[in-house]
Amino acid sequence: MAYNLVLLRHGESDWNQKNLFTGWVDVTLTDKGRAEGVRAGELLAESGLLPDVVHTSRLKRAILTSQIALEAADRSWIDTHRSWRLNERHYGALQGKNKKEIRDEFGEEQFMTWRRSFDTPPPELEDSSEWSQAGDPRYANLGAALPRTECLKDVIVRLLPYWYDSIVPDLQLGRTVLVAAHGNSLRALVKHLDGISDEEITGLNIPTGIPLHYELDEETLAPVTARGTYLDADAAAEAAAAVANQGR
Amino acid sequence: MAYNLVLLRHGESDWNQKNLFTGWVDVTLTDKGRAEGVRAGELLAESGLLPDVVHTSRLKRAILTSQIALEAADRSWIDTHRSWRLNERHYGALQGKNKKEIRDEFGEEQFMTWRRSFDTPPPELEDSSEWSQAGDPRYANLGAALPRTECLKDVIVRLLPYWYDSIVPDLQLGRTVLVAAHGNSLRALVKHLDGISDEEITGLNIPTGIPLHYELDEETLAPVTARGTYLDADAAAEAAAAVANQGR
Repeated sequence: MAYNLVLLRHGESDWNQKNLFTGWVDVTLTDKGRAEGVRAGELLAESGLLPDVVHTSRLKRAILTSQIALEAADRSWIDTHRSWRLNERHYGALQGKNKKEIRDEFGEEQFMTWRRSFDTPPPELEDSSEWSQAGDPRYANLGAALPRTECLKDVIVRLLPYWYDSIVPDLQLGRTVLVAAHGNSLRALVKHLDGISDEEITGLNIPTGIPLHYELDEETLAPVTARGTYLDADAAAEAAAAVANQGR
Repeated sequence: MAYNLVLLRHGESDWNQKNLFTGWVDVTLTDKGRAEGVRAGELLAESGLLPDVVHTSRLKRAILTSQIALEAADRSWIDTHRSWRLNERHYGALQGKNKKEIRDEFGEEQFMTWRRSFDTPPPELEDSSEWSQAGDPRYANLGAALPRTECLKDVIVRLLPYWYDSIVPDLQLGRTVLVAAHGNSLRALVKHLDGISDEEITGLNIPTGIPLHYELDEETLAPVTARGTYLDADAAAEAAAAVANQGR
Protein backbone atom coordinates (compact mmCIF):
# COMPACT_ATOMS: atom_id res chain seq x y z
CA MET A 1 0.00 0.00 0.00
CA ALA A 2 1.13 3.52 -0.81
CA TYR A 3 -0.31 6.86 0.17
CA ASN A 4 -2.39 8.75 -2.39
CA LEU A 5 -1.71 12.44 -2.91
CA VAL A 6 -3.37 14.49 -5.66
CA LEU A 7 -2.08 17.92 -6.64
CA LEU A 8 -4.34 20.34 -8.51
CA ARG A 9 -3.26 23.71 -9.89
CA HIS A 10 -6.14 26.19 -10.12
CA GLY A 11 -7.83 26.87 -13.45
CA GLU A 12 -7.41 30.03 -15.49
CA SER A 13 -7.85 33.24 -13.51
CA ASP A 14 -8.77 36.76 -14.62
CA TRP A 15 -5.11 37.73 -14.44
CA ASN A 16 -3.76 34.64 -16.20
CA GLN A 17 -5.96 35.76 -19.05
CA LYS A 18 -4.66 39.34 -18.83
CA ASN A 19 -1.05 38.09 -18.55
CA LEU A 20 -0.42 39.89 -15.24
CA PHE A 21 1.82 38.77 -12.37
CA THR A 22 -0.68 37.71 -9.69
CA GLY A 23 1.08 36.22 -6.69
CA TRP A 24 -0.95 36.92 -3.55
CA VAL A 25 -3.50 39.17 -5.27
CA ASP A 26 -6.84 37.39 -4.78
CA VAL A 27 -8.25 37.29 -8.30
CA THR A 28 -11.10 35.02 -9.31
CA LEU A 29 -11.52 32.33 -11.98
CA THR A 30 -12.60 32.92 -15.56
CA ASP A 31 -15.40 30.80 -17.03
CA LYS A 32 -12.65 28.72 -18.65
CA GLY A 33 -11.05 28.30 -15.20
CA ARG A 34 -14.35 27.08 -13.77
CA ALA A 35 -14.72 24.61 -16.65
CA GLU A 36 -11.21 23.34 -15.86
CA GLY A 37 -12.39 22.73 -12.30
CA VAL A 38 -15.34 20.66 -13.50
CA ARG A 39 -13.06 18.62 -15.78
CA ALA A 40 -10.64 18.03 -12.88
CA GLY A 41 -13.50 16.69 -10.76
CA GLU A 42 -14.64 14.41 -13.56
CA LEU A 43 -11.08 13.06 -13.88
CA LEU A 44 -11.00 12.34 -10.13
CA ALA A 45 -14.34 10.54 -10.30
CA GLU A 46 -13.43 8.55 -13.44
CA SER A 47 -10.13 7.43 -11.95
CA GLY A 48 -11.73 6.47 -8.63
CA LEU A 49 -9.28 8.77 -6.84
CA LEU A 50 -11.86 10.27 -4.49
CA PRO A 51 -10.33 12.71 -2.01
CA ASP A 52 -11.07 12.23 1.70
CA VAL A 53 -9.70 15.64 2.65
CA VAL A 54 -8.70 18.80 0.80
CA HIS A 55 -6.02 21.36 1.63
CA THR A 56 -6.10 24.71 -0.19
CA SER A 57 -4.33 28.03 -0.13
CA ARG A 58 -6.10 31.17 1.15
CA LEU A 59 -6.62 32.39 -2.42
CA LYS A 60 -9.99 32.07 -4.11
CA ARG A 61 -8.72 30.83 -7.46
CA ALA A 62 -7.44 27.66 -5.74
CA ILE A 63 -10.39 27.46 -3.32
CA LEU A 64 -13.02 27.81 -6.06
CA THR A 65 -11.22 25.31 -8.29
CA SER A 66 -11.27 22.79 -5.43
CA GLN A 67 -14.94 23.46 -4.67
CA ILE A 68 -15.97 23.09 -8.31
CA ALA A 69 -13.89 19.92 -8.75
CA LEU A 70 -15.20 18.36 -5.56
CA GLU A 71 -18.80 19.14 -6.51
CA ALA A 72 -18.21 17.46 -9.89
CA ALA A 73 -16.74 14.43 -8.09
CA ASP A 74 -19.60 14.47 -5.54
CA ARG A 75 -17.17 14.97 -2.64
CA SER A 76 -18.21 18.41 -1.38
CA TRP A 77 -18.67 16.92 2.08
CA ILE A 78 -15.00 16.14 2.82
CA ASP A 79 -12.95 17.94 5.46
CA THR A 80 -11.41 21.20 4.29
CA HIS A 81 -8.28 23.01 5.44
CA ARG A 82 -6.78 26.26 4.23
CA SER A 83 -3.36 27.78 4.76
CA TRP A 84 -1.37 30.76 3.48
CA ARG A 85 1.55 28.30 3.32
CA LEU A 86 -0.01 26.86 0.13
CA ASN A 87 -0.37 30.33 -1.45
CA GLU A 88 1.22 31.21 -4.75
CA ARG A 89 4.71 32.69 -4.60
CA HIS A 90 4.53 36.35 -3.58
CA TYR A 91 5.70 38.22 -6.66
CA GLY A 92 6.79 41.36 -4.79
CA ALA A 93 6.79 44.58 -6.79
CA LEU A 94 5.83 42.63 -9.92
CA GLN A 95 2.31 41.93 -8.60
CA GLY A 96 -0.24 43.66 -10.82
CA LYS A 97 2.30 44.24 -13.61
CA ASN A 98 1.94 42.94 -17.17
CA LYS A 99 4.34 40.09 -17.93
CA LYS A 100 5.02 41.23 -21.48
CA GLU A 101 5.67 44.84 -20.40
CA ILE A 102 8.09 43.70 -17.69
CA ARG A 103 9.87 41.55 -20.25
CA ASP A 104 10.09 44.41 -22.75
CA GLU A 105 11.22 46.90 -20.07
CA PHE A 106 13.80 44.78 -18.26
CA GLY A 107 14.79 42.28 -20.94
CA GLU A 108 14.56 38.53 -21.25
CA GLU A 109 17.31 37.72 -18.76
CA GLN A 110 15.94 39.77 -15.86
CA PHE A 111 12.42 38.62 -16.70
CA MET A 112 13.41 34.95 -16.54
CA THR A 113 15.43 35.53 -13.38
CA TRP A 114 12.39 37.00 -11.62
CA ARG A 115 10.06 34.32 -12.99
CA ARG A 116 12.20 31.27 -12.55
CA SER A 117 15.31 31.90 -10.46
CA PHE A 118 15.44 29.59 -7.46
CA ASP A 119 16.82 32.08 -4.97
CA THR A 120 16.50 35.62 -6.39
CA PRO A 121 13.23 37.31 -5.34
CA PRO A 122 11.87 40.36 -7.18
CA PRO A 123 12.03 43.71 -5.33
CA GLU A 124 9.69 43.96 -2.32
CA LEU A 125 6.14 45.22 -2.76
CA GLU A 126 5.45 48.45 -0.83
CA ASP A 127 2.71 48.16 1.82
CA SER A 128 1.11 51.23 0.26
CA SER A 129 0.59 49.42 -3.07
CA GLU A 130 -2.95 48.60 -4.08
CA TRP A 131 -1.69 45.04 -4.62
CA SER A 132 -0.23 44.67 -1.11
CA GLN A 133 -1.72 42.22 1.40
CA ALA A 134 -0.69 44.36 4.39
CA GLY A 135 -3.75 44.67 6.65
CA ASP A 136 -5.60 41.73 5.05
CA PRO A 137 -7.34 39.96 7.96
CA ARG A 138 -6.64 36.51 6.51
CA TYR A 139 -2.91 37.05 7.17
CA ALA A 140 -3.23 38.91 10.48
CA ASN A 141 -1.55 35.97 12.24
CA LEU A 142 1.68 36.70 10.38
CA GLY A 143 2.28 40.18 11.80
CA ALA A 144 5.53 41.62 10.51
CA ALA A 145 6.41 38.24 8.94
CA LEU A 146 3.94 38.84 6.09
CA PRO A 147 5.87 38.22 2.86
CA ARG A 148 6.57 41.27 0.67
CA THR A 149 8.31 39.18 -2.01
CA GLU A 150 9.43 35.58 -2.41
CA CYS A 151 11.66 33.41 -4.55
CA LEU A 152 10.93 29.70 -4.97
CA LYS A 153 13.37 28.89 -2.17
CA ASP A 154 11.32 31.08 0.18
CA VAL A 155 8.17 29.23 -0.87
CA ILE A 156 9.75 25.87 -0.02
CA VAL A 157 10.79 27.14 3.40
CA ARG A 158 7.29 28.34 4.29
CA LEU A 159 5.48 25.41 2.64
CA LEU A 160 7.32 22.48 4.22
CA PRO A 161 6.07 23.04 7.78
CA TYR A 162 2.52 22.66 6.46
CA TRP A 163 3.48 19.60 4.44
CA TYR A 164 4.97 17.80 7.44
CA ASP A 165 2.54 18.95 10.11
CA SER A 166 -0.81 19.04 8.28
CA ILE A 167 -0.73 17.08 5.02
CA VAL A 168 1.50 14.10 5.88
CA PRO A 169 -0.57 13.23 8.98
CA ASP A 170 -3.67 13.01 6.77
CA LEU A 171 -1.80 10.69 4.38
CA GLN A 172 -0.73 8.57 7.32
CA LEU A 173 -4.37 8.08 8.26
CA GLY A 174 -4.75 6.42 4.86
CA ARG A 175 -6.69 9.33 3.41
CA THR A 176 -6.55 10.33 -0.23
CA VAL A 177 -5.40 13.95 0.05
CA LEU A 178 -6.20 16.67 -2.50
CA VAL A 179 -3.94 19.75 -2.46
CA ALA A 180 -5.44 22.64 -4.47
CA ALA A 181 -2.84 25.33 -4.95
CA HIS A 182 -0.72 27.28 -7.42
CA GLY A 183 1.97 26.97 -10.06
CA ASN A 184 4.84 27.80 -7.75
CA SER A 185 3.62 26.34 -4.46
CA LEU A 186 3.05 23.05 -6.30
CA ARG A 187 6.48 23.32 -8.00
CA ALA A 188 7.94 23.76 -4.53
CA LEU A 189 6.19 20.63 -3.30
CA VAL A 190 7.10 18.58 -6.38
CA LYS A 191 10.73 19.70 -6.05
CA HIS A 192 10.70 18.41 -2.48
CA LEU A 193 8.93 15.12 -3.28
CA ASP A 194 11.02 14.23 -6.33
CA GLY A 195 14.31 15.66 -5.10
CA ILE A 196 14.63 17.89 -8.15
CA SER A 197 17.74 20.07 -8.28
CA ASP A 198 17.67 23.87 -7.95
CA GLU A 199 18.65 24.13 -11.61
CA GLU A 200 16.23 21.59 -13.04
CA ILE A 201 13.19 22.97 -11.22
CA THR A 202 13.43 26.21 -13.20
CA GLY A 203 12.30 24.33 -16.31
CA LEU A 204 9.39 22.46 -14.70
CA ASN A 205 5.86 23.68 -15.46
CA ILE A 206 2.70 22.27 -13.89
CA PRO A 207 -0.40 22.64 -16.07
CA THR A 208 -3.65 24.05 -14.71
CA GLY A 209 -6.68 21.96 -13.87
CA ILE A 210 -5.23 18.49 -14.43
CA PRO A 211 -4.97 16.37 -11.27
CA LEU A 212 -1.42 15.09 -10.70
CA HIS A 213 -1.42 11.84 -8.75
CA TYR A 214 1.48 10.79 -6.53
CA GLU A 215 1.67 7.43 -4.87
CA LEU A 216 4.06 7.86 -1.93
CA ASP A 217 5.96 5.13 -0.14
CA GLU A 218 4.60 4.70 3.38
CA GLU A 219 8.04 4.66 4.98
CA THR A 220 10.01 7.26 3.06
CA LEU A 221 7.21 9.35 1.49
CA ALA A 222 9.17 9.05 -1.77
CA PRO A 223 7.16 8.90 -5.02
CA VAL A 224 6.57 5.35 -6.27
CA THR A 225 6.61 6.82 -9.80
CA ALA A 226 8.95 9.80 -10.23
CA ARG A 227 7.13 13.03 -11.17
CA GLY A 228 3.77 11.39 -10.49
CA THR A 229 1.04 10.66 -13.03
CA TYR A 230 -1.31 13.18 -14.63
CA LEU A 231 -4.88 11.88 -14.79
CA ASP A 232 -5.02 13.23 -18.36
CA ALA A 233 -1.49 12.79 -19.70
CA ASP A 234 -2.14 14.15 -23.20
CA ALA A 235 -3.78 17.32 -21.94
CA ALA A 236 -0.97 17.77 -19.42
CA ALA A 237 1.74 17.65 -22.07
CA GLU A 238 -0.13 20.15 -24.24
CA ALA A 239 -0.82 22.52 -21.36
CA ALA A 240 2.74 22.42 -20.00
CA ALA A 241 4.02 23.60 -23.36
CA ALA A 242 1.54 26.49 -23.32
CA VAL A 243 2.58 27.58 -19.80
CA ALA A 244 6.24 27.66 -20.86
CA ASN A 245 5.30 30.24 -23.49
CA GLN A 246 3.71 32.70 -21.05
CA GLY A 247 5.01 36.24 -21.43
CA ARG A 248 6.00 35.70 -25.08
CA MET B 1 -19.43 43.46 23.09
CA ALA B 2 -21.54 40.47 22.14
CA TYR B 3 -20.70 37.45 20.04
CA ASN B 4 -21.92 37.36 16.43
CA LEU B 5 -23.58 34.21 15.15
CA VAL B 6 -25.20 33.97 11.72
CA LEU B 7 -27.50 31.08 10.81
CA LEU B 8 -28.19 30.26 7.17
CA ARG B 9 -30.67 27.68 5.93
CA HIS B 10 -29.74 26.24 2.52
CA GLY B 11 -31.50 27.46 -0.61
CA GLU B 12 -34.06 25.48 -2.57
CA SER B 13 -33.00 21.92 -3.39
CA ASP B 14 -34.13 19.53 -6.09
CA TRP B 15 -36.33 17.77 -3.58
CA ASN B 16 -37.80 20.92 -2.01
CA GLN B 17 -38.99 21.65 -5.52
CA LYS B 18 -40.37 18.13 -5.95
CA ASN B 19 -41.98 18.28 -2.47
CA LEU B 20 -40.18 15.14 -1.23
CA PHE B 21 -39.00 14.40 2.31
CA THR B 22 -35.21 14.74 2.04
CA GLY B 23 -33.55 14.38 5.45
CA TRP B 24 -30.08 12.88 4.99
CA VAL B 25 -30.44 12.22 1.25
CA ASP B 26 -27.71 14.34 -0.35
CA VAL B 27 -29.63 16.25 -3.03
CA THR B 28 -28.24 19.32 -4.75
CA LEU B 29 -29.46 22.90 -5.14
CA THR B 30 -31.76 24.15 -7.89
CA ASP B 31 -30.78 27.28 -9.83
CA LYS B 32 -33.18 29.16 -7.55
CA GLY B 33 -31.34 27.70 -4.53
CA ARG B 34 -28.01 28.90 -5.94
CA ALA B 35 -29.46 32.37 -6.48
CA GLU B 36 -30.61 32.34 -2.84
CA GLY B 37 -27.00 31.63 -1.86
CA VAL B 38 -25.75 34.63 -3.83
CA ARG B 39 -28.39 36.86 -2.24
CA ALA B 40 -27.41 35.58 1.22
CA GLY B 41 -23.79 36.52 0.56
CA GLU B 42 -24.80 39.96 -0.65
CA LEU B 43 -26.79 40.48 2.55
CA LEU B 44 -23.76 39.48 4.63
CA ALA B 45 -21.53 41.91 2.73
CA GLU B 46 -24.06 44.77 2.82
CA SER B 47 -24.58 44.35 6.56
CA GLY B 48 -20.83 44.16 7.25
CA LEU B 49 -21.38 40.81 8.99
CA LEU B 50 -18.37 39.09 7.44
CA PRO B 51 -17.89 35.54 8.73
CA ASP B 52 -14.46 34.55 10.06
CA VAL B 53 -15.29 30.86 10.11
CA VAL B 54 -18.05 28.65 8.69
CA HIS B 55 -19.55 25.45 10.06
CA THR B 56 -21.68 23.30 7.75
CA SER B 57 -23.44 19.96 7.73
CA ARG B 58 -22.10 17.09 5.59
CA LEU B 59 -24.86 17.65 3.01
CA LYS B 60 -24.14 19.42 -0.24
CA ARG B 61 -27.22 21.65 -0.26
CA ALA B 62 -25.89 23.39 2.88
CA ILE B 63 -22.24 23.21 1.80
CA LEU B 64 -22.92 24.66 -1.67
CA THR B 65 -25.15 27.40 -0.22
CA SER B 66 -22.32 28.40 2.12
CA GLN B 67 -19.73 28.32 -0.68
CA ILE B 68 -21.89 30.43 -2.99
CA ALA B 69 -22.73 32.92 -0.23
CA LEU B 70 -19.10 33.23 0.88
CA GLU B 71 -17.93 33.76 -2.69
CA ALA B 72 -20.53 36.55 -3.08
CA ALA B 73 -19.30 38.09 0.20
CA ASP B 74 -15.64 37.63 -0.88
CA ARG B 75 -14.91 35.40 2.13
CA SER B 76 -14.11 32.09 0.42
CA TRP B 77 -10.79 32.02 2.30
CA ILE B 78 -12.19 31.55 5.82
CA ASP B 79 -11.73 28.39 7.88
CA THR B 80 -14.29 25.69 7.13
CA HIS B 81 -15.63 22.90 9.33
CA ARG B 82 -18.20 20.23 8.57
CA SER B 83 -20.12 17.89 10.82
CA TRP B 84 -22.95 15.38 10.52
CA ARG B 85 -24.21 16.93 13.76
CA LEU B 86 -25.47 19.88 11.71
CA ASN B 87 -27.27 17.61 9.22
CA GLU B 88 -30.98 17.88 8.57
CA ARG B 89 -33.25 15.73 10.73
CA HIS B 90 -33.17 12.13 9.48
CA TYR B 91 -36.69 11.55 8.19
CA GLY B 92 -36.58 7.78 8.56
CA ALA B 93 -38.86 5.79 6.27
CA LEU B 94 -40.30 9.05 4.89
CA GLN B 95 -37.06 9.90 3.07
CA GLY B 96 -37.69 9.92 -0.66
CA LYS B 97 -41.49 10.04 -0.20
CA ASN B 98 -43.75 12.77 -1.58
CA LYS B 99 -45.11 15.03 1.16
CA LYS B 100 -48.52 15.40 -0.41
CA GLU B 101 -48.89 11.63 -0.95
CA ILE B 102 -47.91 10.93 2.66
CA ARG B 103 -50.47 13.50 3.79
CA ASP B 104 -53.19 12.01 1.60
CA GLU B 105 -52.34 8.43 2.65
CA PHE B 106 -51.94 8.92 6.40
CA GLY B 107 -54.06 12.03 7.01
CA GLU B 108 -53.31 15.51 8.26
CA GLU B 109 -52.77 14.54 11.90
CA GLN B 110 -50.20 11.80 11.28
CA PHE B 111 -48.51 13.96 8.64
CA MET B 112 -48.14 16.90 11.04
CA THR B 113 -46.97 14.59 13.84
CA TRP B 114 -44.18 13.23 11.65
CA ARG B 115 -43.29 16.67 10.33
CA ARG B 116 -43.49 18.67 13.50
CA SER B 117 -43.80 16.52 16.61
CA PHE B 118 -41.02 17.22 19.08
CA ASP B 119 -40.46 13.67 20.24
CA THR B 120 -42.17 11.26 17.83
CA PRO B 121 -39.84 10.08 15.04
CA PRO B 122 -41.17 8.50 11.84
CA PRO B 123 -40.58 4.74 11.38
CA GLU B 124 -36.94 3.77 10.83
CA LEU B 125 -35.47 3.66 7.32
CA GLU B 126 -34.31 0.17 6.29
CA ASP B 127 -30.59 -0.08 5.49
CA SER B 128 -31.57 -1.73 2.21
CA SER B 129 -33.45 1.38 1.06
CA GLU B 130 -32.00 3.35 -1.83
CA TRP B 131 -32.34 6.40 0.45
CA SER B 132 -30.36 4.89 3.34
CA GLN B 133 -26.98 6.29 4.39
CA ALA B 134 -25.75 2.89 5.65
CA GLY B 135 -22.25 2.39 4.17
CA ASP B 136 -21.76 6.06 3.26
CA PRO B 137 -18.06 6.76 3.99
CA ARG B 138 -18.81 10.23 5.37
CA TYR B 139 -20.60 8.61 8.32
CA ALA B 140 -18.27 5.65 8.79
CA ASN B 141 -17.18 7.09 12.17
CA LEU B 142 -20.72 6.52 13.52
CA GLY B 143 -20.72 2.74 13.14
CA ALA B 144 -23.97 1.28 14.47
CA ALA B 145 -24.92 4.71 15.87
CA LEU B 146 -25.84 5.96 12.38
CA PRO B 147 -29.36 7.44 12.68
CA ARG B 148 -32.16 5.56 10.91
CA THR B 149 -34.78 8.14 11.93
CA GLU B 150 -34.94 11.20 14.17
CA CYS B 151 -37.41 13.50 15.85
CA LEU B 152 -36.49 17.10 16.66
CA LYS B 153 -35.55 16.07 20.19
CA ASP B 154 -33.01 13.61 18.76
CA VAL B 155 -31.56 16.39 16.60
CA ILE B 156 -31.05 18.61 19.64
CA VAL B 157 -29.28 15.79 21.51
CA ARG B 158 -26.81 15.17 18.66
CA LEU B 159 -26.39 18.85 17.76
CA LEU B 160 -25.55 20.32 21.17
CA PRO B 161 -22.17 18.58 21.59
CA TYR B 162 -21.04 20.29 18.38
CA TRP B 163 -22.49 23.62 19.51
CA TYR B 164 -20.61 23.57 22.80
CA ASP B 165 -17.35 21.97 21.65
CA SER B 166 -16.85 23.44 18.17
CA ILE B 167 -19.01 26.53 17.57
CA VAL B 168 -18.95 28.27 20.96
CA PRO B 169 -15.13 28.18 21.16
CA ASP B 170 -15.00 30.03 17.81
CA LEU B 171 -17.42 32.66 19.16
CA GLN B 172 -15.27 33.01 22.25
CA LEU B 173 -12.30 33.87 20.05
CA GLY B 174 -14.35 36.87 18.90
CA ARG B 175 -15.01 35.35 15.49
CA THR B 176 -18.16 36.01 13.51
CA VAL B 177 -19.45 32.47 12.98
CA LEU B 178 -21.59 31.34 10.05
CA VAL B 179 -23.58 28.11 10.49
CA ALA B 180 -24.92 26.80 7.18
CA ALA B 181 -27.42 24.05 7.83
CA HIS B 182 -31.04 22.92 7.51
CA GLY B 183 -34.60 23.71 8.55
CA ASN B 184 -34.65 21.31 11.47
CA SER B 185 -31.05 21.48 12.67
CA LEU B 186 -31.41 25.28 12.78
CA ARG B 187 -34.79 24.99 14.56
CA ALA B 188 -33.03 22.78 17.11
CA LEU B 189 -30.33 25.40 17.63
CA VAL B 190 -32.80 28.30 17.81
CA LYS B 191 -34.91 26.36 20.32
CA HIS B 192 -31.84 25.97 22.48
CA LEU B 193 -30.66 29.58 22.13
CA ASP B 194 -34.06 31.18 22.75
CA GLY B 195 -35.33 28.66 25.28
CA ILE B 196 -38.40 27.95 23.15
CA SER B 197 -40.83 25.38 24.60
CA ASP B 198 -41.40 21.93 23.07
CA GLU B 199 -44.89 23.07 22.03
CA GLU B 200 -44.00 26.44 20.59
CA ILE B 201 -41.11 25.15 18.45
CA THR B 202 -43.56 23.11 16.36
CA GLY B 203 -44.90 26.35 14.86
CA LEU B 204 -41.51 27.94 14.12
CA ASN B 205 -40.32 28.01 10.50
CA ILE B 206 -36.94 29.29 9.36
CA PRO B 207 -36.92 30.59 5.79
CA THR B 208 -34.28 29.50 3.27
CA GLY B 209 -31.39 31.67 2.18
CA ILE B 210 -31.87 34.62 4.54
CA PRO B 211 -29.07 35.06 7.11
CA LEU B 212 -30.41 35.14 10.67
CA HIS B 213 -28.13 37.16 12.97
CA TYR B 214 -27.89 36.46 16.69
CA GLU B 215 -25.91 38.64 19.03
CA LEU B 216 -25.12 36.47 22.06
CA ASP B 217 -24.23 37.67 25.53
CA GLU B 218 -20.58 36.85 26.26
CA GLU B 219 -21.33 35.41 29.70
CA THR B 220 -24.56 33.52 29.23
CA LEU B 221 -24.62 33.00 25.44
CA ALA B 222 -28.26 34.20 25.61
CA PRO B 223 -29.57 36.17 22.61
CA VAL B 224 -29.39 39.94 23.09
CA THR B 225 -32.51 40.15 20.88
CA ALA B 226 -34.89 37.21 21.24
CA ARG B 227 -35.28 35.19 18.01
CA GLY B 228 -32.41 37.10 16.39
CA THR B 229 -32.66 39.46 13.41
CA TYR B 230 -33.09 38.45 9.78
CA LEU B 231 -30.85 40.48 7.48
CA ASP B 232 -33.86 40.85 5.15
CA ALA B 233 -36.87 41.01 7.47
CA ASP B 234 -39.53 41.47 4.79
CA ALA B 235 -38.32 38.53 2.73
CA ALA B 236 -38.10 36.39 5.89
CA ALA B 237 -41.73 37.03 6.83
CA GLU B 238 -42.90 36.22 3.31
CA ALA B 239 -40.78 33.06 3.08
CA ALA B 240 -41.79 31.75 6.51
CA ALA B 241 -45.41 31.87 5.46
CA ALA B 242 -44.61 29.90 2.31
CA VAL B 243 -42.72 27.18 4.25
CA ALA B 244 -45.69 26.71 6.57
CA ASN B 245 -47.80 25.79 3.54
CA GLN B 246 -45.51 22.96 2.36
CA GLY B 247 -47.38 19.74 1.72
CA ARG B 248 -50.68 21.53 1.07
